Amino acid sequence: MPTERAVLDAHYMARALELARKGLYSTHPNPRVGCVIVRDGQVVGEGWHVRAGEPHAEVHALRQAGELARGACAYVTLEPCSHHGRTPPCAEALVNAGVARVVAAMQDPNPQVAGQGLKRLADAGIEVSSGVLEAEARALNPGFLKRMEHGLPYVRVKLAMSLDGRTAMASGESQWITGPAARSAVQRLRARSSVVLTSAESVIADNARMTVRAEELGLDAENTALALARQPLRVLIDGRLRLPLEASFYQAGPALVATAAAGDERYAQAGVELLQLPGQDGRVDLRALLLELAARGVNEVLVEAGPGLAGAFAQSGLVDEYQLFIAGKFLGSSARPLLDWPLARMSEAPALKITEMRAVGDDWRVTAIPVPASGV
Amino acid sequence: MPTERAVLDAHYMARALELARKGLYSTHPNPRVGCVIVRDGQVVGEGWHVRAGEPHAEVHALRQAGELARGACAYVTLEPCSHHGRTPPCAEALVNAGVARVVAAMQDPNPQVAGQGLKRLADAGIEVSSGVLEAEARALNPGFLKRMEHGLPYVRVKLAMSLDGRTAMASGESQWITGPAARSAVQRLRARSSVVLTSAESVIADNARMTVRAEELGLDAENTALALARQPLRVLIDGRLRLPLEASFYQAGPALVATAAAGDERYAQAGVELLQLPGQDGRVDLRALLLELAARGVNEVLVEAGPGLAGAFAQSGLVDEYQLFIAGKFLGSSARPLLDWPLARMSEAPALKITEMRAVGDDWRVTAIPVPASGV
Repeated sequence: MPTERAVLDAHYMARALELARKGLYSTHPNPRVGCVIVRDGQVVGEGWHVRAGEPHAEVHALRQAGELARGACAYVTLEPCSHHGRTPPCAEALVNAGVARVVAAMQDPNPQVAGQGLKRLADAGIEVSSGVLEAEARALNPGFLKRMEHGLPYVRVKLAMSLDGRTAMASGESQWITGPAARSAVQRLRARSSVVLTSAESVIADNARMTVRAEELGLDAENTALALARQPLRVLIDGRLRLPLEASFYQAGPALVATAAAGDERYAQAGVELLQLPGQDGRVDLRALLLELAARGVNEVLVEAGPGLAGAFAQSGLVDEYQLFIAGKFLGSSARPLLDWPLARMSEAPALKITEMRAVGDDWRVTAIPVPASGV
Repeated sequence: MPTERAVLDAHYMARALELARKGLYSTHPNPRVGCVIVRDGQVVGEGWHVRAGEPHAEVHALRQAGELARGACAYVTLEPCSHHGRTPPCAEALVNAGVARVVAAMQDPNPQVAGQGLKRLADAGIEVSSGVLEAEARALNPGFLKRMEHGLPYVRVKLAMSLDGRTAMASGESQWITGPAARSAVQRLRARSSVVLTSAESVIADNARMTVRAEELGLDAENTALALARQPLRVLIDGRLRLPLEASFYQAGPALVATAAAGDERYAQAGVELLQLPGQDGRVDLRALLLELAARGVNEVLVEAGPGLAGAFAQSGLVDEYQLFIAGKFLGSSARPLLDWPLARMSEAPALKITEMRAVGDDWRVTAIPVPASGV
């Protein structure tokens, strides 16, 4: 049996996580963080981080608590920061407010914090603990954690397929495999991502813009506003610069193009940044691109492309999560594969753990995570 | 709000359905039927049909109720029979026992009954109603109903595939795509079927016997005994009689072979029945085979075969349900398709309704039902 204190700690931390989740669409490049301040069994302050440059969750909650923060307990979904960033350190604010206890869901993996925030609090005589609902807290910020811990963003690959694992007819015909509820879910995946990444091939085939569209998000007014205040950066992989600058994709806003070719000044004039990242066989070096994106503060990347680019990501071991939208259709044995990835033997077949299957309108959504090869 | 009587009727019918389900593995060619007899708010008799030739559910329940059946209400998951089959008519037994009321979940679609049972009861002054939990009752006997209503068995196609919709490597390598829990579920699908149908190609590739194996069923002792008391008939599609009579498949027990070729007396000598059903292109006429099986009392057919035969069933519109076991693996774009069924345009893509997805060990099980083409 957990102690009553442990039960209550989990209870308040769950509320702090709920608050943190409100920042799903807006905190980039910062993590989503929530905070609850409790005194004598009453919640006296709540806060969540809305967007970079604005106050952190703790500051909002402390402001709401006012003098009641003195002697109270603060629950935070991430270790309070100890460094001066765009805002003053939260550890300092908690000390100044006179809280008696701070419970964190997890340490901040940011090397600028990494235990220093909790240490600062303990040094000031505050009772400190960490690790309450840690798994839930980690799941809320997969990109921020991956970037801090590995210097790479968290890569989600979205694919829409038929029940027989096909993405389009052999002719390329593919529109509307899945229904409106699935498309809405994809819009929300875009909106939570720092970057939406696609290939010239996909953009040319569908004349796609890859933007977040308010009317398709299926969110309430508050969340829609938060999502639209920050469009994800659109990154195009165009090894040979085939997509003309007149394409809808370029007309729809700022974009970054990763290429293996030499560009010219027309791209800069059009407000498009070119990144020269040649890899093998005249293709773009995907790993180098991800490292560059992480260096720019990119947490979550959504890859929306055809079997070619999705297959290249899969083969390179750079995928953290697959989001498969499955339509109740058979496209038949001559249709296009899910991934361009020929394998000869079962022993080469990459293993995945299917973590979730749920209905989305008439379609189904499967979440699957690559399982590291055993013995590696 | 439903009336109290409707609430109680549903309550007792749910129990009758639970009893009927005990016959899942044993009633072939009869339907699964359960019966509950209630008097003054007390269950005084319960029964279920165990196997053909033995007493029907009503008889078991009446025996248990004895004199308490007089003036009681009988709940039956299927309209009581009115004809003399291998056992005397149940409608007669209910009249003789003096029950005051009979509630059926559904009318019996058997043309020998079809309302005559309920009419016989009403003529004797018994209060009669039908349609309580009818959908659940129908779901329990898909094969019996399909056979009575359409003269065809209910055809389930089982397929094991990777997450990218592949069934085997290009080389044919395919063993153990799914894990033990999925294989156990397939054993239970076999056990409930009247017929397990496969192709010579599959049997030759895997040296398969296609039998029900006690140790893999994952059932308790009572259900295991019921399942093993009646092995499903194994039907082989072998258009050119390629499988030698010495194969494990033939050694494992009685079998029926559907072929387009002329057989010889060795098959009869080996106890194997040959059915000559030539269709187009030297292939077996699948529809003719299913009609013949239905005429022999076959309710549920489980098709376990590779992309070739499964694809042929799918294309012919003879499939009632797909059972897809999905493993968390990618087999890659050169691996074998789910179904051999080339399609050129999206408009030709057959639609399915995915009715269920659930975890089975490390794998997932998807149930999908073909949706009739609109306007047809």
